Amino acid sequence: MVVSLRVPSLGSLFAPSKLFSPQIIRQNRCQPLRRRVPYAAFSAHSAASSPPETEDRVDGNKTRAKPDQVITPRSQDFNAWYLDVIANAELADYGPVRGTMVIRPYGYAIWEAIQDYLNVKFKETGHSNMYFPQFIPYSFLEKEASHVEGFSPELAVVTIGGGKELEEKLVVRPTSETIVNHMFTQWIHSYRDLPLLVNQWANVTRWEMRTKLFLRTLEFLWQEGHTAHATPEEAEKEALQMIDVYTKFAYEQAAIPVIAGRKSNIERFAGALKTYTIEGMMGDRKALQAGTSHNLGQNFSRAFETQFTDENGQRQHVWQTSWAISTRFVGGIIMTHGDDAGLMLPPKIAPTQVVIVPIWKKEEERVGVLSAASSVKEVLQSAGIKVKLDDSDQRTPGWKFNFWEMKVFILKFPTMFLLKKVLVPSLN
Amino acid sequence: MVVSLRVPSLGSLFAPSKLFSPQIIRQNRCQPLRRRVPYAAFSAHSAASSPPETEDRVDGNKTRAKPDQVITPRSQDFNAWYLDVIANAELADYGPVRGTMVIRPYGYAIWEAIQDYLNVKFKETGHSNMYFPQFIPYSFLEKEASHVEGFSPELAVVTIGGGKELEEKLVVRPTSETIVNHMFTQWIHSYRDLPLLVNQWANVTRWEMRTKLFLRTLEFLWQEGHTAHATPEEAEKEALQMIDVYTKFAYEQAAIPVIAGRKSNIERFAGALKTYTIEGMMGDRKALQAGTSHNLGQNFSRAFETQFTDENGQRQHVWQTSWAISTRFVGGIIMTHGDDAGLMLPPKIAPTQVVIVPIWKKEEERVGVLSAASSVKEVLQSAGIKVKLDDSDQRTPGWKFNFWEMKVFILKFPTMFLLKKVLVPSLN
Repeated sequence: MVVSLRVPSLGSLFAPSKLFSPQIIRQNRCQPLRRRVPYAAFSAHSAASSPPETEDRVDGNKTRAKPDQVITPRSQDFNAWYLDVIANAELADYGPVRGTMVIRPYGYAIWEAIQDYLNVKFKETGHSNMYFPQFIPYSFLEKEASHVEGFSPELAVVTIGGGKELEEKLVVRPTSETIVNHMFTQWIHSYRDLPLLVNQWANVTRWEMRTKLFLRTLEFLWQEGHTAHATPEEAEKEALQMIDVYTKFAYEQAAIPVIAGRKSNIERFAGALKTYTIEGMMGDRKALQAGTSHNLGQNFSRAFETQFTDENGQRQHVWQTSWAISTRFVGGIIMTHGDDAGLMLPPKIAPTQVVIVPIWKKEEERVGVLSAASSVKEVLQSAGIKVKLDDSDQRTPGWKFNFWEMKVFILKFPTMFLLKKVLVPSLN
Repeated sequence: MVVSLRVPSLGSLFAPSKLFSPQIIRQNRCQPLRRRVPYAAFSAHSAASSPPETEDRVDGNKTRAKPDQVITPRSQDFNAWYLDVIANAELADYGPVRGTMVIRPYGYAIWEAIQDYLNVKFKETGHSNMYFPQFIPYSFLEKEASHVEGFSPELAVVTIGGGKELEEKLVVRPTSETIVNHMFTQWIHSYRDLPLLVNQWANVTRWEMRTKLFLRTLEFLWQEGHTAHATPEEAEKEALQMIDVYTKFAYEQAAIPVIAGRKSNIERFAGALKTYTIEGMMGDRKALQAGTSHNLGQNFSRAFETQFTDENGQRQHVWQTSWAISTRFVGGIIMTHGDDAGLMLPPKIAPTQVVIVPIWKKEEERVGVLSAASSVKEVLQSAGIKVKLDDSDQRTPGWKFNFWEMKVFILKFPTMFLLKKVLVPSLN
């Protein structure tokens, strides 16, 4: 039996801060195991780690790639490496339309982990989820001058609906500030309706010429927060609060040491007063913009006449923010933590932290091995670890090792060591 | 102080099966309160319940509608009533493009409750979430004859991308069988790759001529499951399994007594061999289709050449299913449980089960009342009840009662009764 652990390196398991070590699992079996990973050490480690070539391999196969697949070394060609990792770990594929992306189950599970964390934080900070339609009249974009200038080259346009040419062309949302303001104008009447704090999880479309899986695709998934406030101070505070939520997420969940800052006037969002950003350094020593939060001022509220009556009975335009993180963040995780051997995921984001691959030589060993493997699974699960028991009959253990090594970093225990030292004491 | 409970009627609180009664809350404060509601009784009750006109009202306002809004009685005009309920409970609005829908926070929270339950069930039955692009080449739809015939009158078509006329027109997905099969063909090679069981939560577009919020809109949200199997028996079993998941959901979560059955050949999904459906009777005694599960046979796998090599080395076309529940289900919940007074939600689906509205007459009472209200909230929360403390300064208690009565069914306790009988003993 082999246990695969999703950890940055073998060393850390036996170092003083034992993350997911058998001892910790045993001692805390009734509590979720959610130790904070010191991000700086983690990140440094990730960059320095190397494939465990010194370890024995049960199947004797020295290549980490599947027989018919090879990962280009990261140091040799970062771009080719990135695409190889995505293909071999089965994270995503291109769709039939140029530049579109199919997010496969393992890649989507990373996105779900991002959603699960952020959704809680958004609600804790007072935001409600909702949904705005994706079709926006083209005229809406023209109302805010810099907005239409920024987005018009990237639009997908619906011109036919129900078999007929449409009177007004519809834009497939590249972002939703315009339609949000159109609706806010109907919901906001007085200062009592403020602040209005909403978020949506949605797909957006930007007709990019050069695409790359997760980083830049024609259609991508994201969350977009939209808020309206009575004062400019409140809007600024909100914009900063949300970039702070993103920063904490990057450090504490994704183990990416980002730098939070403000975009130059040239780079800011089309329609914003100020754009705050978190940017991280990827494995190729280039920066990646991983999340943005915009103080929109009154740019959209003036364009759409989104007004409220203040406590003195005066009509005022609202002050607004918007903020977003997208599936691009999955690309950032791959490029920060991956190494020559393939994908490396921070434990809190990893869909699978431990994989158990049972091995039996004779058929009569089968029941016993599967029963022991299930016990290991239960112990790990009760410790809050996301564990998968790969007990399918259709593949050999060797195939399974190669398959899982594409997605996780494998740690092997001899069966008896594991059973005696970990399982038996903790099951008693 | 007033406590609003989201329950079908006052009577049931004091009947033998005390759902959410103070006694139950007190006795079970450390466990989530998730009693199964007997659906038949619940549904019957819902239809028979009436507004609590005999109860005292703190604000003395006898109308349940907001001062400027009135709900048409259900018995008088079901359609007008339905739209009034949606407007007054702030569930959804029409978007700027004809027939599109903005799902507002309270309506979206109902959809999130549906998602939370089904997502767990889908994963328990072995399905993984993923994401397929929404743009589909028009030629894909033409590959399956009855599919294109069924969907072509309802398509939204993108003809311009990045400022240029596209060579091939793109369909905004009305459903995803075609693009799913295109991708399955790349992923499925041998019997070892089967069954392939995936699901996506996504938006879809159908250019409907006559629209109605939640029930039929140009764009709506849904989940669509897609599976591929080695044998027709497995596909049939899967299609039946998923209609069974939907049926249980309808009965046990949404308290809607649906009937599961099979669609006639004329009504079945365009491209399916068999379509299973759950249908419920709404408050106007008309049926509503609330979820469908299709046995697709080999219709799409033959059109897209989705094949696998079986254990004997023979190439075979896969057998498939697809199944979906959409935001239409929210409409079904409204139409099943609502009454003349407005929205009624089954407790397991309700975003808010209890609302606490604190009242103080003199400013010096404020701190004490808010502190007591917070204690009530904590007790209820620890019992697993979704509770909201509406402690905002900006609205009067009378306004709050009217607002919340649009969304929930209100039960009032005199403050001292509540504090003495419920709070004090349970806090000791």
